[in-house]
Amino acid sequence: MVHIPNQQPAQRSVPTSADVARLAGVSRATVSYVLNNTSAVRISEPTRRRVHDAARELGYVPHAAARSLRAGHSRMVLMPTSEIPMGLLFSTFFNELQWALSRLDYTVVQYASLGMTGEDAARAWAELRPVAVLAPDASALGPRGVTVLKRSGAKAVFTLGPQRVEGAHALLMDGRRVGRAAALHFLARGRRRIGAIVPTEAGLEMFWQPRVAGLRETVEATGTHGATVTELSLGYSEESAARLAARWRDLGVDAVFAYNDEYAMLLMRALQDEGIDVPGDTAVIGSDDLMLGRLLRPRLSTVRIDLPSGRSLAELVDRVVRDPGAEPEVHDVLGADVVHRESS
Amino acid sequence: MVHIPNQQPAQRSVPTSADVARLAGVSRATVSYVLNNTSAVRISEPTRRRVHDAARELGYVPHAAARSLRAGHSRMVLMPTSEIPMGLLFSTFFNELQWALSRLDYTVVQYASLGMTGEDAARAWAELRPVAVLAPDASALGPRGVTVLKRSGAKAVFTLGPQRVEGAHALLMDGRRVGRAAALHFLARGRRRIGAIVPTEAGLEMFWQPRVAGLRETVEATGTHGATVTELSLGYSEESAARLAARWRDLGVDAVFAYNDEYAMLLMRALQDEGIDVPGDTAVIGSDDLMLGRLLRPRLSTVRIDLPSGRSLAELVDRVVRDPGAEPEVHDVLGADVVHRESS
Repeated sequence: MVHIPNQQPAQRSVPTSADVARLAGVSRATVSYVLNNTSAVRISEPTRRRVHDAARELGYVPHAAARSLRAGHSRMVLMPTSEIPMGLLFSTFFNELQWALSRLDYTVVQYASLGMTGEDAARAWAELRPVAVLAPDASALGPRGVTVLKRSGAKAVFTLGPQRVEGAHALLMDGRRVGRAAALHFLARGRRRIGAIVPTEAGLEMFWQPRVAGLRETVEATGTHGATVTELSLGYSEESAARLAARWRDLGVDAVFAYNDEYAMLLMRALQDEGIDVPGDTAVIGSDDLMLGRLLRPRLSTVRIDLPSGRSLAELVDRVVRDPGAEPEVHDVLGADVVHRESS
Repeated sequence: MVHIPNQQPAQRSVPTSADVARLAGVSRATVSYVLNNTSAVRISEPTRRRVHDAARELGYVPHAAARSLRAGHSRMVLMPTSEIPMGLLFSTFFNELQWALSRLDYTVVQYASLGMTGEDAARAWAELRPVAVLAPDASALGPRGVTVLKRSGAKAVFTLGPQRVEGAHALLMDGRRVGRAAALHFLARGRRRIGAIVPTEAGLEMFWQPRVAGLRETVEATGTHGATVTELSLGYSEESAARLAARWRDLGVDAVFAYNDEYAMLLMRALQDEGIDVPGDTAVIGSDDLMLGRLLRPRLSTVRIDLPSGRSLAELVDRVVRDPGAEPEVHDVLGADVVHRESS
């Protein structure tokens, strides 16, 4: 009896560069040169075409990982994502930055760090071998995190936020400027007893703390007679706003910086429902210049925040990647101006 | 003369597992077993400790890429990011999903595709060798994109949005339900001449088209005598809203579905400024149930959108990764209910 081997259905496996080489009748090195567009090696056009055809036929995709293992680094820019939903201002800025980086041939990847901080977070990011990291929270990264990233081959580590960290370039977003702009606006209009809304929602500390600090510092620095700053807690709900409005007259504030436009809109409505005149009894100012603030009556005054163009930041990242030994740079990138409407 | 070689400053190079092996006095294989927590091989506690200490001292981080090259796949779940800023609803949903996936030991990475579609986008994603992909736009991915991803080793390809694509699992978010809910609400209240706001901003088609289609289909299906649907363009600016409001009386609509709450707030303000009574002359409804809609007078009616829990979706992803040969599943995941307030 003749033994006929079982015809197993072919196991559908992921095609490798060896498969491409076999089909194209060339070496694996040639496949690598062609698909990675290596200019150092001259390869004839027909061979190039044969490799591309074979790759297409097999559905072969080069492995970014393998490529970065060979090159020692990638073109990946890693940005840890925050769990705080980004407003329109930051979404627009990040979109622009991503486009600009992709035009410079970087791949932008956002990484969900989910509560990891410092070295733990840095190690998780480093596993992907990014060539650059843009971290939003310097305090969570820490100098040891920066070291981990650099030792894993990251050529540029930037922080993007209110704080600096040793060893990293800083795109400093100094939220104190927002509070300072609001304070100067109120003081110039004769307001003296200034409230500062502190949102009770977790995770917003890194935003409100510098704003309130800037407000307080400015009031103290001007030495205006009788000027005070009172912190007032507010949760983002109608109930919380109604509770705060109910004891408003006892607080004796004649102006309030409401953290941002959303909290300002919430508070202004509650004050009006309580019969408190805005801006007669209390001037209200928000920040972020949301379009919706213009729809209220009175129209909401706000502090407009200006961010740099994504393109200029992308060029900065690229420059540092090309010159990784340079001293850490600090760029002050946040502007703040009052848009005076009717509520203040 | 004695030649003294230049003392070059040591080139600070990225530490490798070979460096760790040398310092710990073990083989590279042992380093790999220890740092990848391979349970198949028994390694003594002191050896384990020696490897961990050496890795820490050198600042060595395993290369996710190298690990996935060995394993043939990663634990990476890749989600292409959209350029449209996500509302609070989707941000919350994605945060929950990311947490739930990370608890199942996946790493979630968002990838900026930036205008790439189909095979191009899929090839770019495939280079990172994700084990699963959650793509928000099925039509941009296409069946060939799904094939590229699967051939590169992705075990689970999901689409998350209004459309399906051959070969992928679908988490179907049928926006027609939003329009249907609004239509039934208006018809039940005797409104017949229904306007549907069409935002002029680019990139929103995938959201508004199904909503308007659902509105229209429902009005036609009920066969209500004299009921009509009129599409009305509106840009997200006060000028655009004022222009639309100025010709409102000529349009003869007695109800309007305003795409979402932000457009609804903008339109309602412009209608009120034009002396049109809401809801007397025109009923207005938005969607998304933003908190700010409750601050207006009249309070804005809205269609509340319900998404599934991130945890249940994470479990679904994990199940498919473990059983990649299973037939594509379709899950209808979007719920829509009217929250009736004062504007309708």
